Amino acid sequence: MFGAISADKVMKISVEISKAYRLLNHGPTVLVSTAHHNQRNVMAAAWNMPLDFDPPKVAIVIDKNTYTRELIESSGSFAINVPCRAQAEMVVKVGSSSGRELLGKAEDNKFAAFDLPTFTASKIAAPLLEGCVAWLECKVVPEPHIRDAYDLYLAEVVAAWTDERVFSDGHWHFEGHDELRTIHHIAGGNFFTTGEAFKA
Amino acid sequence: MFGAISADKVMKISVEISKAYRLLNHGPTVLVSTAHHNQRNVMAAAWNMPLDFDPPKVAIVIDKNTYTRELIESSGSFAINVPCRAQAEMVVKVGSSSGRELLGKAEDNKFAAFDLPTFTASKIAAPLLEGCVAWLECKVVPEPHIRDAYDLYLAEVVAAWTDERVFSDGHWHFEGHDELRTIHHIAGGNFFTTGEAFKA
Repeated sequence: MFGAISADKVMKISVEISKAYRLLNHGPTVLVSTAHHNQRNVMAAAWNMPLDFDPPKVAIVIDKNTYTRELIESSGSFAINVPCRAQAEMVVKVGSSSGRELLGKAEDNKFAAFDLPTFTASKIAAPLLEGCVAWLECKVVPEPHIRDAYDLYLAEVVAAWTDERVFSDGHWHFEGHDELRTIHHIAGGNFFTTGEAFKA
Repeated sequence: MFGAISADKVMKISVEISKAYRLLNHGPTVLVSTAHHNQRNVMAAAWNMPLDFDPPKVAIVIDKNTYTRELIESSGSFAINVPCRAQAEMVVKVGSSSGRELLGKAEDNKFAAFDLPTFTASKIAAPLLEGCVAWLECKVVPEPHIRDAYDLYLAEVVAAWTDERVFSDGHWHFEGHDELRTIHHIAGGNFFTTGEAFKA
């Protein structure tokens, strides 16, 4: 799957693990995907950040009422998918619905209900969403106290991938790809796109 | 000081505390200012995120080798200052120098050494930086294990302020104020500005 052309003809390339923090350092809103046995889900999460460089770790808030939380507790892993401008409407749909309410229906998960194609991760069970521009495969670092008290999860990034059109050799390069720019949620479906790059 | 014209003629307005998360939700890079007795310091921090709505909490990574960490441990508080495009060069200077190395010199802190005007916070000792576009006054929520293991601090936001030109009534509005747009660090002095707003 990786290093080859995937289903939607977009090349995914591996990110050097010590550079994985750069996928989240600028603060994009992300989608968290999970799977356990035949259950899978995806939710939106603006509250995420890098926590360490190498091995890379992340911190992310996952509300205790979410179905995603159940699947993370069962599987011990999740994927962070970094969506882009072209996917913003989907991000709002995914972020304002519960996978739990789909259980037992014909389309019993958000991927089916919202027609979201995925591809296979390399080290975890969670599916990765096509159309996103970066993916971080994460294994939970168990910290039950802060999970229970603050809904806060810490995880190690065990693999990371990007759409080579906008991230390669450790650098983002969105020029000429406005629809692939990452997005930053504020509240109520209001976002900023990632803007102009500059060096200070 | 607040609700009046401050030294640089910019009106700072109070943010309803339940909306304070919106100052960080889009993932800007911030400056952390601190004070204890006659010591004060400021550092840059890209690794920050909201942690709760009301009362608002934040999570932020503060390396154990920083002078800022010493002052946070002594004072139990810090301020998050949200800098803007016009301040990016200052953010890099502040982020690549140590306040500890200035101790004993004529200009014994970064505010003096870099000529950074400040104003007084309402509930904590840390000075707030003029020219930033939002400020969050924070009191540490003691969690020694994650502090020691991950350099991770949690804090409650006890007051928040904005430059009313770009944030009022709970909303950012950067249009016509490109120099006041917030900034998002990637690595090595490379940033993105906060881009176009849109609703999905």
